Amino acid sequence: VAGHFADRLLKAIEAKGAPICVGIDPLYSRLPKAITEHKRLNDEQDIEAAVDAIFEFCTKLIKVIAPYVPAVKFQSAYFERYYWDGVESYYSLIQEANEYDLEIIADVKRGDIGSTSQAYAQAHLADPQLMDMEDYVGPDAVTVNAYMGTEAVEPFLEIAAEQGKGVFVVVRSSNPSAAAIQDAVTTDGKPVYQLLAEQIRPLAERYIGQRGYSLLGAVAGGTAPEQLRRLRELLPQCILLVPGYGTQGADAASCAAAFKPDRTGALVTASRSIIYAYEQPRYAERFGAENWQACIEQAVKDFAAEINAALNGG
Amino acid sequence: VAGHFADRLLKAIEAKGAPICVGIDPLYSRLPKAITEHKRLNDEQDIEAAVDAIFEFCTKLIKVIAPYVPAVKFQSAYFERYYWDGVESYYSLIQEANEYDLEIIADVKRGDIGSTSQAYAQAHLADPQLMDMEDYVGPDAVTVNAYMGTEAVEPFLEIAAEQGKGVFVVVRSSNPSAAAIQDAVTTDGKPVYQLLAEQIRPLAERYIGQRGYSLLGAVAGGTAPEQLRRLRELLPQCILLVPGYGTQGADAASCAAAFKPDRTGALVTASRSIIYAYEQPRYAERFGAENWQACIEQAVKDFAAEINAALNGG
Repeated sequence: VAGHFADRLLKAIEAKGAPICVGIDPLYSRLPKAITEHKRLNDEQDIEAAVDAIFEFCTKLIKVIAPYVPAVKFQSAYFERYYWDGVESYYSLIQEANEYDLEIIADVKRGDIGSTSQAYAQAHLADPQLMDMEDYVGPDAVTVNAYMGTEAVEPFLEIAAEQGKGVFVVVRSSNPSAAAIQDAVTTDGKPVYQLLAEQIRPLAERYIGQRGYSLLGAVAGGTAPEQLRRLRELLPQCILLVPGYGTQGADAASCAAAFKPDRTGALVTASRSIIYAYEQPRYAERFGAENWQACIEQAVKDFAAEINAALNGG
Repeated sequence: VAGHFADRLLKAIEAKGAPICVGIDPLYSRLPKAITEHKRLNDEQDIEAAVDAIFEFCTKLIKVIAPYVPAVKFQSAYFERYYWDGVESYYSLIQEANEYDLEIIADVKRGDIGSTSQAYAQAHLADPQLMDMEDYVGPDAVTVNAYMGTEAVEPFLEIAAEQGKGVFVVVRSSNPSAAAIQDAVTTDGKPVYQLLAEQIRPLAERYIGQRGYSLLGAVAGGTAPEQLRRLRELLPQCILLVPGYGTQGADAASCAAAFKPDRTGALVTASRSIIYAYEQPRYAERFGAENWQACIEQAVKDFAAEINAALNGG
C-alpha cells in the first residue's frame, strides 16, 4: 500500500465517479439459492460448507460491484461467526478485493487499553510481518470504538501513518439506540459525540494528506442528519464514513449532509440493501431473483446515481 | 453449561476462597525463555511457532493458577494477532480452561448494531451449534462495548439467558484515557458512565439468579475508586468485573470499593502482574526466573491474599 489513505480514497472516488462503499455482511440464510442449493454447499450447519458458500458469494459480489465502487467494507462479525475457518476466509477475501484495487475497510470496531489496542491494530490493520503471511496484505482502513478514549485509537494511527492506511473512529453511529449515550448533552452544552469529535480532531490534524484530508476519519450515521451536519463542521479534515443508507432508513438527501460544497469529504456505505438486492421486488421482478448478480449490479448503479443526484441538488 | 452465571460464579468464588480472576494476555516476547528457546518454538516471525509457544505457556499457566482462582479472562486481541491460527488456539484454550471447571470470561469488547452484535454473540459467547464444533463449548461470559447503545448488548443477553452465561458491559474502564468520555458530566449532573449504568440496570433486573445477582455485570476499573464506589451503589444486582489491579496501578484497597459489606459482588482481575511474575525481582530472586511456574503460583497466592486482606479491613 503506497501513499496517504485519504489521497488514495479521494482518487478512487473520482475514478469510479461515486463516493460510495458496499458493506459486505454475509449471512448464509440470505445467500442466493443458486449457491446454497449446490450439493457441496447446502448445509448451513457444516462450517466448511457455510464458509465456502459465503466465500463464493463474496468473490462474485466483489467482481460485480468493483467497476462501480471505490471501496468495500467487510463486516468482521459475519466471518468470526464461523470461528477460525471464517477468519481465514475473511483475510482471503481481503486479498480478493485487493486484486480489484478497491479500498478495503475492515469494520471491526475494536478498541481497548493501549497495549491491547496495539495487538488489535496488528491483527486488523497492519500488513502482516510474519513470514508465513508475507504474501498477504492487511485492509486499507479499519473502524475503531473510542469509548475507552484516545488510548484505544492511537496504536491504530501509528500503524496507519507508517503503512499508508486509515482509521475511522465511531463518533455517531446509525442505529436506533445510538442516541442514548452519543447524544447525551454534557454540562458545557455539547453532546457526547461532539466531545469525542473534539478529542479526535487534534489527532486527525497530525496526519493530513495532499488533498487536505486526514487518514483519521469518523463514522457518522446517515440516519442522524443533524448530527451529521454538525460533524461535517467540527471535523473539516476528516472523511466521514456514513452508514445507514438503505436498510437502516437513511435516504440520499440525509447522507448528503456529510459532504462539503465541493462534494468531497464523505463515503456513504450501504450493505444489506445492495448485497441482497435479489430479495427486493424492484430488482427480482425486472431481472429474476435467480439472476442475483444482475440485481446487485443494478442496485449498486442505482445507489451511485441516487447519491450523485442528491449531491447535485437533485 | 448449566444454571445461572452469577450463581455459578459466586459458588466458584466461595470454593476457591478468593474473588479474583487472572487475565491471559500472552505476548510472545514476554514468554519464559524455557519455552521460546525450544528449537521448535524459537521463531516469533513464524506463526506456527509463535502460536504453539503461546499455547504451551497458556496451558501450563492455567494448570498452575486453577487451584487458586474461580475464573480466567482471555484477551482475544493477543490471539487475533496471529490470524486464524491464533483464533483456533484461542478456542482450544477455552476448552482447556473448561477442563479445570474455571469460569471463563472472553474479553472481546465487541458491540455493534443489533444484527451485527447478534453475529458477534454467536461467535464469542454461544456454545457452537455447528456440527463440526459440537464438542466445543463457548466461554461462560463475554465483555461488551455499549457506546452504540443497548441494541449492541441485547443479542448477547439473549444467548446468555438461554445458555446460562454472562455479559459484562464496559461502564468505566481502568485506563488513563477512560475519563475523557466516560466521566464527562451530562446536564442532569450525571457522568456518562452513570448514564450507561442506568441504561443497563433495567436490563440486569430481567435476569436475576438465586443469589440476587444478574447475569449482566459491568466492567468497572479499580484505578477509579470513586467511580467504582458509585457503581457499586447504582448497580446493586450487577457483579463488577474490576480490571486495573497490578500493572495498571490499582491496589487492593481501591478494588475493595467494588464489593458489598458481605464481600460479594465483584471479581478483581489482574493480568500482566501475574502471568509475567517471573519478570519481577520479588519472585525471580526467590524462585529463580527460570522457575516461572513457581513465580506465577506465588504471585496468584499473593494476589488472593492481598484482596482478601483488603476485604477483611486489612
